Amino acid sequence: MARLKIKDILKSGKAGDEVVAKGWVRTKRGSKNVNFIALNDGSTINNLQIVVDVESFDEAVLRDINTGASLAVTGTLVESAGSGQNIELNAREIKVLGKADPEKFPIQSKKHSLEFLRENAHLRFRTNTFGAIFRIRHAMAFAIHKYFNEKGFNYLHTPIITASDAEGAGQMFRVSTLDAKNPPLTEEGAIDYSQDFFGRATNLTVSGQLEGELGALALGEIYTFGPTFRAENSNTTRHLAEFWMIEPEMAFYDLKDNMDLAEEFLKSCIKYALDNCMDDLKFLAQRLEQEEKNKPQDQRSMPLIEKLQFVLDNDFIRLTYTEAIDILRNSKPFKKNQFQFPVEWGIDLQSEHERYLVEKHFKCPVILTDYPKDIKAFYMKQNDDNKTVRAMDVLFPQIGEIIGGSQREEDLTKLENRMKEMDIPVDEMWWYLDTRRFGSVVHSGFGLGFERFILFVTGMGNIRDVIAFPRTPKNAEF
Amino acid sequence: MARLKIKDILKSGKAGDEVVAKGWVRTKRGSKNVNFIALNDGSTINNLQIVVDVESFDEAVLRDINTGASLAVTGTLVESAGSGQNIELNAREIKVLGKADPEKFPIQSKKHSLEFLRENAHLRFRTNTFGAIFRIRHAMAFAIHKYFNEKGFNYLHTPIITASDAEGAGQMFRVSTLDAKNPPLTEEGAIDYSQDFFGRATNLTVSGQLEGELGALALGEIYTFGPTFRAENSNTTRHLAEFWMIEPEMAFYDLKDNMDLAEEFLKSCIKYALDNCMDDLKFLAQRLEQEEKNKPQDQRSMPLIEKLQFVLDNDFIRLTYTEAIDILRNSKPFKKNQFQFPVEWGIDLQSEHERYLVEKHFKCPVILTDYPKDIKAFYMKQNDDNKTVRAMDVLFPQIGEIIGGSQREEDLTKLENRMKEMDIPVDEMWWYLDTRRFGSVVHSGFGLGFERFILFVTGMGNIRDVIAFPRTPKNAEF
Repeated sequence: MARLKIKDILKSGKAGDEVVAKGWVRTKRGSKNVNFIALNDGSTINNLQIVVDVESFDEAVLRDINTGASLAVTGTLVESAGSGQNIELNAREIKVLGKADPEKFPIQSKKHSLEFLRENAHLRFRTNTFGAIFRIRHAMAFAIHKYFNEKGFNYLHTPIITASDAEGAGQMFRVSTLDAKNPPLTEEGAIDYSQDFFGRATNLTVSGQLEGELGALALGEIYTFGPTFRAENSNTTRHLAEFWMIEPEMAFYDLKDNMDLAEEFLKSCIKYALDNCMDDLKFLAQRLEQEEKNKPQDQRSMPLIEKLQFVLDNDFIRLTYTEAIDILRNSKPFKKNQFQFPVEWGIDLQSEHERYLVEKHFKCPVILTDYPKDIKAFYMKQNDDNKTVRAMDVLFPQIGEIIGGSQREEDLTKLENRMKEMDIPVDEMWWYLDTRRFGSVVHSGFGLGFERFILFVTGMGNIRDVIAFPRTPKNAEF
Repeated sequence: MARLKIKDILKSGKAGDEVVAKGWVRTKRGSKNVNFIALNDGSTINNLQIVVDVESFDEAVLRDINTGASLAVTGTLVESAGSGQNIELNAREIKVLGKADPEKFPIQSKKHSLEFLRENAHLRFRTNTFGAIFRIRHAMAFAIHKYFNEKGFNYLHTPIITASDAEGAGQMFRVSTLDAKNPPLTEEGAIDYSQDFFGRATNLTVSGQLEGELGALALGEIYTFGPTFRAENSNTTRHLAEFWMIEPEMAFYDLKDNMDLAEEFLKSCIKYALDNCMDDLKFLAQRLEQEEKNKPQDQRSMPLIEKLQFVLDNDFIRLTYTEAIDILRNSKPFKKNQFQFPVEWGIDLQSEHERYLVEKHFKCPVILTDYPKDIKAFYMKQNDDNKTVRAMDVLFPQIGEIIGGSQREEDLTKLENRMKEMDIPVDEMWWYLDTRRFGSVVHSGFGLGFERFILFVTGMGNIRDVIAFPRTPKNAEF
């Protein structure tokens, strides 16, 4: 008899069906006569309840059925009298596939701290919380590919190892095969990277955008979805040294088209989660509620599912950076000196400012546009005021900036001048500038940090908990 | 009026429709009175023919309409008298968005060598060949996600930066932020990696498999799809330093389940290509035919679309490595000393042997199983003969090995012993061994090199031509 997945048994199994289920024991409880085993195979957050008539089984077998052990169970489905499930499995045969010594298996049925589970990231997938998170993470990755595929975008794999540092987005990891202790030197005493694997100094990419533009200015619409890296010594709940980014780039899109796309895209993914991940979302919603139950009412998060629905139901408010600064300077927290950071035209907005706009003032996701050029990257399209650029940031409740993007400067002269002003090596970027030299067009794009988006969808608080094996300062375990 | 994509105009446009099309000029030809512009926007390999009544336009505008220039064209669709298209666009207004100096734009309408286009990889997307390749590459990536999503697999992002070198699959790239010239040293004079970003020596991953197993042994079925790296100085048409791999791992799958999955998976992707990419495939099929027209008949490839259909229509032949060695030793080329490499039990099969089995002997894709343990990795399940392991390689025409996989050793003792025999550091791998310590189950998995698969589907001959910006020894341009 072929094994059925527990998800399928719970969905389509009927009383009287003979089935084989395989999975891992989450809990075992019961009396002298009957045991109840909660069996999970990862296909769903829901467990299959196995009913064991104690008398029919060897004591030795029953002794090995502990949390974490793996079983193959053959038996008959029966309607369940208990609450929480419609159907359960009356065991006729139980085979313990792999034991789990209860003295040694770290993931017991009691609640573990998220920190403890991070140290056991290789086993945390076996908990309800992390099973839910990683199924949702999968669903969101798929929703992203599905959305762009249906819109006619082409998925482009931009390089991970790169010789260009043009974006200046942050500190980079060096990639090398030179002898680490005694690297070859030039006559001038510098490291001779011409002898390195790629014949030059190389780093891990901080963004696929520039190469993405090359694709868009030929294929029309592309997106990247790949790992990016920052060698910043930031030990926060928001930063990873290795994280995944989605970066669409589109020819013939101006800033308005870009905003329309970003809003439609985010809503499409959130709708996919609500349509396809409700069991996992409900669990995480309860988890969040539980976690915050001791907080004062006004410091609690919006309930998870309500929050997702809220984003779906509302048009994102669009305004300029300059208008936002006005609002902030006229706000109560500004007047009462409650903001930690200053608010004046020209500053980069802090999370507290972004969250005030989203959570207090507009009570709605917000798109800010037309930021001061001095706080944005060289490639953003310059406005005629010579002060601002066609940037856009999408701001979400709790998260703050979730998407950053812009219309790109398509005018060769303006772009070159800005690069010179900002000390970006124009010569090294010949390939990027070629797209402005030959058949340049209006185009735009944006970037979404995948893990920040997963934080939003799952309601988790620490970015280390939404990526399988987080890479952070002093940590590359597993 | 909103711009329409050329793909949509060609598909749904009707004579009399007013449209705006935007794109890049592929060619311009015509007479004193009428010009024909082939306009392409990357949405399809097919161009929209723009008909220009020369008298109605400024000479200055017409002069700027050169290959590579970008245009916005407004006009009326009319039925086309020419062959190759049903509909064409009578231009009323043409705006040159970005010029392309014909003296300088490298991608002229004449045929360029693939080598020349590699040096201009930033612009080669604008050719028919590379447009087709990168649309197909997108379609295949999407087909992979779609296939696994529908089967209930979870997409797992395994780490790119890793401290483990357990797979021993090849030379690795070092990742570091230490001072390259004067790295800190320990008292013993070794490099003090405890001061490096991650507090230890780290490299770029060669495979996500081991971490993939951790996911599978909790979530049931997972797959990875991410970049992997080899610092091998191999300058061949088959090797890249940076390439993308797909690695599914499945709990409760034995070797037969693994083979069934691999065969169904490959066929599903190929069917997706035939169903969704026919315009691009037809172009590449013609290209291949053209390229090989001067070869003797018996050295030409099977026509591209026929080859794809052939894989779809045939059951893959399954046999053991030992049986394959027998076939090879009884073959004509062996007896006539025509194989370059020796054939005897224990050797690793070479491409010539694999291709003989597939192309000459069986005339069918082949899955070889149960390889000698000494030529395979430590984690493969040991057979009772103590000589072979439950490995499987899927062999394709022209490509040779396209998939490598195995049932994994789930027995802790056997696995540890094999690791010790092979000098794999057992202690460092505590997290991997924990999955065999706690609730171990039969499981399997395989790896598909994405670019090799794209070579097969597109009929291209050089792996540098199926990835956007290839990374090879002495080359990290763009």
